[in-house]
Amino acid sequence: MNYKMMGRFIAQILSIEGVFMIPALIISLCYGESEAAAAFGWTLLAIAAITAALFLICRGAPSAFYAREGLVCVGVCWIVLSLLGSLPFYISREIPKYVDAFFEIVSGFTTTGASILTDVEALSHGIMYWRSFSHWVGGMGVLVFLLAFTGEKGKGFTMHLLRAESPGPDVGKLVPKMRTTAMILYIIYIVMTVLNVIFLLLGDMPVFEAVCTALGTAGTGGFGIKNDSLASYSPYIQNVTAVFMSLFGINFSCYYLLLMRQFKSVFKDEELRLYIGMILTAILLIVLNVRNLYGSLGETIRHAAFQVSSIITTTGYSTTDFDLWPTFSRTVLMCLMVVGGCAGSTAGGLKVARLLLLLKGLKRNVSQMLNPRKVQVIRNNNSVVDEKILTNTNAYLAAYVVILFAIFLIISLDGFSIGTNFSAALCTFNNIGPGMEAVGPMCNFSIYSDLSTFVLSIGMLAGRLEIFPILILFAPKTWKRV
Amino acid sequence: MNYKMMGRFIAQILSIEGVFMIPALIISLCYGESEAAAAFGWTLLAIAAITAALFLICRGAPSAFYAREGLVCVGVCWIVLSLLGSLPFYISREIPKYVDAFFEIVSGFTTTGASILTDVEALSHGIMYWRSFSHWVGGMGVLVFLLAFTGEKGKGFTMHLLRAESPGPDVGKLVPKMRTTAMILYIIYIVMTVLNVIFLLLGDMPVFEAVCTALGTAGTGGFGIKNDSLASYSPYIQNVTAVFMSLFGINFSCYYLLLMRQFKSVFKDEELRLYIGMILTAILLIVLNVRNLYGSLGETIRHAAFQVSSIITTTGYSTTDFDLWPTFSRTVLMCLMVVGGCAGSTAGGLKVARLLLLLKGLKRNVSQMLNPRKVQVIRNNNSVVDEKILTNTNAYLAAYVVILFAIFLIISLDGFSIGTNFSAALCTFNNIGPGMEAVGPMCNFSIYSDLSTFVLSIGMLAGRLEIFPILILFAPKTWKRV
Repeated sequence: MNYKMMGRFIAQILSIEGVFMIPALIISLCYGESEAAAAFGWTLLAIAAITAALFLICRGAPSAFYAREGLVCVGVCWIVLSLLGSLPFYISREIPKYVDAFFEIVSGFTTTGASILTDVEALSHGIMYWRSFSHWVGGMGVLVFLLAFTGEKGKGFTMHLLRAESPGPDVGKLVPKMRTTAMILYIIYIVMTVLNVIFLLLGDMPVFEAVCTALGTAGTGGFGIKNDSLASYSPYIQNVTAVFMSLFGINFSCYYLLLMRQFKSVFKDEELRLYIGMILTAILLIVLNVRNLYGSLGETIRHAAFQVSSIITTTGYSTTDFDLWPTFSRTVLMCLMVVGGCAGSTAGGLKVARLLLLLKGLKRNVSQMLNPRKVQVIRNNNSVVDEKILTNTNAYLAAYVVILFAIFLIISLDGFSIGTNFSAALCTFNNIGPGMEAVGPMCNFSIYSDLSTFVLSIGMLAGRLEIFPILILFAPKTWKRV
Repeated sequence: MNYKMMGRFIAQILSIEGVFMIPALIISLCYGESEAAAAFGWTLLAIAAITAALFLICRGAPSAFYAREGLVCVGVCWIVLSLLGSLPFYISREIPKYVDAFFEIVSGFTTTGASILTDVEALSHGIMYWRSFSHWVGGMGVLVFLLAFTGEKGKGFTMHLLRAESPGPDVGKLVPKMRTTAMILYIIYIVMTVLNVIFLLLGDMPVFEAVCTALGTAGTGGFGIKNDSLASYSPYIQNVTAVFMSLFGINFSCYYLLLMRQFKSVFKDEELRLYIGMILTAILLIVLNVRNLYGSLGETIRHAAFQVSSIITTTGYSTTDFDLWPTFSRTVLMCLMVVGGCAGSTAGGLKVARLLLLLKGLKRNVSQMLNPRKVQVIRNNNSVVDEKILTNTNAYLAAYVVILFAIFLIISLDGFSIGTNFSAALCTFNNIGPGMEAVGPMCNFSIYSDLSTFVLSIGMLAGRLEIFPILILFAPKTWKRV
């Protein structure tokens, strides 16, 4: 293991976190929130000290860097980022227990949006901004940001990191150079976020609220700034948010292709078609199921569309307490939770692309039983899918199921109902946010014990990084000298 | 598709069902239950007529028979067996609705043990016997019985059928000849069932009850003959049943190896070790968790051991209402439900052997990330596992998850709680029997609508036949002319 290189890398990531924290400090100062400002100040000092120490210790690192180091690095970086990113919550005493502060920032960075706070509106502006901003940077990835905008080179290195931090079964290169790909992705991301803010401002939303809401939407995170999430905002703002959530759940390479005027390949993209088909089907089913709950058909469609966008993209905003919906609608939402958004988007979950591969694999399996001697390949968007990706997708599902049940089992020690625990495990591991029953959209995760809170935090990290970068940290082999 | 051969085959299977029904008729006559006797009589007549017609129509069938026909044949046979096997329930009016009667016999043949009956004790002896016997013959398989004890030959044919009907990722041949293997399996099965009856009789259980209970234990089915399952029997009878349930959940080839005095290979069998390890761990965890619920430690251990044996082998008998246990214990049971018993046993579920392969696959995946260039194989009991079996195991998991969620979604239309529906889907698909909450051990499945009852029935068949023989019936390609 190339520890020096890893140390240098962590130092770089931490310095970026420090830079990102400065606006939060400024906001605290502007609103005259001295305790929050002090908390950011102390955290920045700590980050600066650690960064400097790491740079000093890790001078002259050998530049050889392998896949394993890339994976380990990503896992460790996210943990370190969370350990330090949670300090402002804790130092300002706005979240008195450190394990809760850790849960909250992990929930932010992983774009989960599950909260342990009972009263969000009591937060200071600086802390509120930092909480929402964590979604934004977590959504596209801090390491991707580093690759895109700093001079970090290193052969092979960038690909390994991008692969570990980007969601989905396969990383599509938009352009031959990985660094340019990362930059294009981030620019699209920034432009779309700004557009979202503008649309919200057009609906007379206050600037601070519009920015925080858009950051949460862009990262498909879902930390609300009101205790009732988006329920008290106007239908216009709810609709804008619903549309943008769905947009941020689409593979970003589609936007790049649109910019390149390759409309046909976007239109024919199988994952996109399935994603849109799932959204429309789910809305239809729910509208039919809850048609008697709201005043008008328009209102019913608005609530159904919002909740479906929010759940499939694993955002977690809500405009109504969907835990009161009939079981069928809640089950539809649970199925969407598991699937999640498209690969290469900021959304979590298993990913639509993986579902597609699993279904195609299943179809081939049946077909091979009918014709055992015929060699059959799986195609995606008309090109043959590498068998290795199929094997990995299946292995991913196995890891997914095993870890999901492990979390489910451990948190059941706290004694809440099976429905609560299963949805809590699903919602954190899939980076969704609120669950059902006692962790429903109008409740929060403060009910769980410290152990469960910690396990759910690790679950969120594993979900965001697609399991293996976290799983690998627990393998004894990883830490053995070769 | 070789329809004539299939028809002839179905006729043979039906005639075996007819023969199996004769004892039930005799029991009805002995107890003077005229309505039940008439019901068996009419059903036997129907079976005889259909069998004769099929034999006539399907004379001179070509003997070529391929994998696809084997699979389709198994699926169709089980459906036909159930359609006719349910007639006695319906004709005798002991189950007034046909869809319920179909559910009940499917639950029997698939060794699920879920019931739609609210009052089991009201059943006549003949019907009760037929219900319990369906577990026994379904556990080892009717087709395996046909292969073992009749003259059916046909090249390639037997292997395809045995593969489709036997549980687990791979069929172990005990001896070179498939027919002899089937016969050995059935003889072990019969001897163990007789032993079980003898042990129950030693505990002063009435003969009829001992036979029915043993039939349900051997098939790991779980239809009780009392409304409270085994709760009112003596601790001795409960303990005997717990031990035999665990024994019937072990791969039968282990018993063959024991008979061949190959103690070492049984002792070193990885699946067996994991199975026993899981049972002991689960008992320990539950005893620690429910230690304050019962009078003494002995009683606690007895209930914990019974429920664990019952759930991991997917039998479904109960001695206590485990739905009242704390969430942690119930979650442990739910995890066991998913795993199920050993491959090559009469138990259902995903199978311990598959869990082992999935975990080993996962370990290799992590290991390959650490050393991408190293070629790594997976070993089971020290021999290399064919990559094809690994791929199939992963595909199986994918099919398993997709179908489980499909069932979960459809039955949610009835509006019961998510916990009830999820456990109902799990318990039928894994062939366990009682679930949690509204389908808990002291409740039954009569709450569901006709649609859900039918879907759950198909789910049970899919679970028992390990998905593909049922899934293949829905593939349009299956029915196309080549």
